[in-house]
Amino acid sequence: MIAVHLESGQVTILQAPKPVRPLGSALIRVLVAGICNTDLELQRGYYDFRGTPGHEFVGEVVEADSPALIGKRVAGEINLACGHCDFCAIGLARHCPTRTVLGIVKHPGAFAEYLVLPESNLHIIPDEIPTDQAVFLEPLAAACEILDQVQMPPGEHVAVLGDGKLGLLVAQVLHSHGCQVTLYGRHENKLALVRKLGVEAIASEARPRAAFQMVVDCTGWASGLQEAVRMVRPRGTVVMKSTIHGDVAIDTAPVIVNEITLIGSRCGRFEPAMEMLRSGRVDVMGFVSAEFPLEQAPAAFAEAARRGVLKVLLRND
Amino acid sequence: MIAVHLESGQVTILQAPKPVRPLGSALIRVLVAGICNTDLELQRGYYDFRGTPGHEFVGEVVEADSPALIGKRVAGEINLACGHCDFCAIGLARHCPTRTVLGIVKHPGAFAEYLVLPESNLHIIPDEIPTDQAVFLEPLAAACEILDQVQMPPGEHVAVLGDGKLGLLVAQVLHSHGCQVTLYGRHENKLALVRKLGVEAIASEARPRAAFQMVVDCTGWASGLQEAVRMVRPRGTVVMKSTIHGDVAIDTAPVIVNEITLIGSRCGRFEPAMEMLRSGRVDVMGFVSAEFPLEQAPAAFAEAARRGVLKVLLRND
Repeated sequence: MIAVHLESGQVTILQAPKPVRPLGSALIRVLVAGICNTDLELQRGYYDFRGTPGHEFVGEVVEADSPALIGKRVAGEINLACGHCDFCAIGLARHCPTRTVLGIVKHPGAFAEYLVLPESNLHIIPDEIPTDQAVFLEPLAAACEILDQVQMPPGEHVAVLGDGKLGLLVAQVLHSHGCQVTLYGRHENKLALVRKLGVEAIASEARPRAAFQMVVDCTGWASGLQEAVRMVRPRGTVVMKSTIHGDVAIDTAPVIVNEITLIGSRCGRFEPAMEMLRSGRVDVMGFVSAEFPLEQAPAAFAEAARRGVLKVLLRND
Repeated sequence: MIAVHLESGQVTILQAPKPVRPLGSALIRVLVAGICNTDLELQRGYYDFRGTPGHEFVGEVVEADSPALIGKRVAGEINLACGHCDFCAIGLARHCPTRTVLGIVKHPGAFAEYLVLPESNLHIIPDEIPTDQAVFLEPLAAACEILDQVQMPPGEHVAVLGDGKLGLLVAQVLHSHGCQVTLYGRHENKLALVRKLGVEAIASEARPRAAFQMVVDCTGWASGLQEAVRMVRPRGTVVMKSTIHGDVAIDTAPVIVNEITLIGSRCGRFEPAMEMLRSGRVDVMGFVSAEFPLEQAPAAFAEAARRGVLKVLLRND
């Protein structure tokens, strides 16, 4: 099969053996996969990554122990956990200390014709969700994770910083939850994607101070965290969604004086994300900027890194 | 009366008029006041402070509207709030946006013969608590604040970093709450003060990684926060208690990947602190390193700034 290979910042296409399915795992033919900012960070040197990236995908099960899975369209949770540590025992396999992570940590990713994942990681996609929407399940689950971490009563004023893919999804999830959401971004075309759903979306550089009960930083910039701290109310919460390579300088005095909570937020459960897509409470129409066949992955990575570009898909269907 | 004056890093003694008591406030003769690290930070330029510092005190009420207060020994909450904003309405006067703060923000402090505070800020000290213990109520309330902010089931493993006054109080409060506390410090004589109470107290530089459900940074150093992030378990909590002047560089990647919560923590309610002192669950014996009469405040500040020194008191009784 062909597979994307990432090493020292270079994206190449290799011929690789089709992966072998261990017992309890499924062999999946990838239909479509999305390039995420994390993939671009891997390219920049994050995690000293070397291998096949890709963790947002929709595929079709080719081989599995469970006959019910064969031929089904699936998405997959990306953390492969041990299944018996303290974290696994309380349903937090995403934090299993010996986990591998699809396309990120020691498990070949989705930018390939085939991948292997444990059957317990898989979620069958209902027929009413098209493949090109289901490919957003993984980042949408990451957006939903915020509501698993922070108790946020409907009606609260929250701000989302950054109009990239994740910022747009987070704004929709919080809006759908009943929060009064203001999304701050820079690109009118992106802001329009959520404004049509009723989210307040502002392209101005002006930021109200101490005005929001929660601020979610999806900027991808170190300055986003500092800005979020200035915008949140005393005793409020800043959700850190932007993985940034390197140190971030923050003034801790206002965090302490105003007793602000900063909370790191990563992957989430797929169930609420699936329900959001199925019910139409989240709309990813217009989120795809470009599509490339798998073998044009180098061009796809270059396109995804261009400023203002939203989701770039790799197709294998 | 005489009052300490702090300006541009210089501590001097001034003659000042005795403060005038507004309606609803009490005039209090200071008996004893403690020099806090925040006072030393004010001396270093934090808040561009200029005036009379001091916010840890025990005094005797000389004049008040309420006859029941006259002649009583009191401690006082340091935030003077408006009483009718959103924060005041929910019992968080400590976060009132227009507050002044005793000895810190636009309200003359306790390093003087007399001070004025609203009667609603005062707590009468029971006879069984000696004055030299009651002067620790304010920092002890700040230690107790952690339990108001973070749900921490008894039995959890928590680490406290720093064996200064606040670290020693935090370790005792969490130990008394039933947590399994390890205090990391550098001074055997200080560590011994809590070790005798059953707290594990370690002078080693070695720090276990990802080992604690909660880590409280009381080091006063920028490196304390970074260390705390390394020591806390995934999904755990780092409590930021050290007000540091200037920016702190942190690697946000582990905060996000491990979904760590960082929470700033400042002043607390006096009620639980009073009960801890009264019941003997917290023991401040041995916490006073030196005492000076009020008029020797410059020497007292110099002593308080010496490494390894615990509480320095200014006496006016």
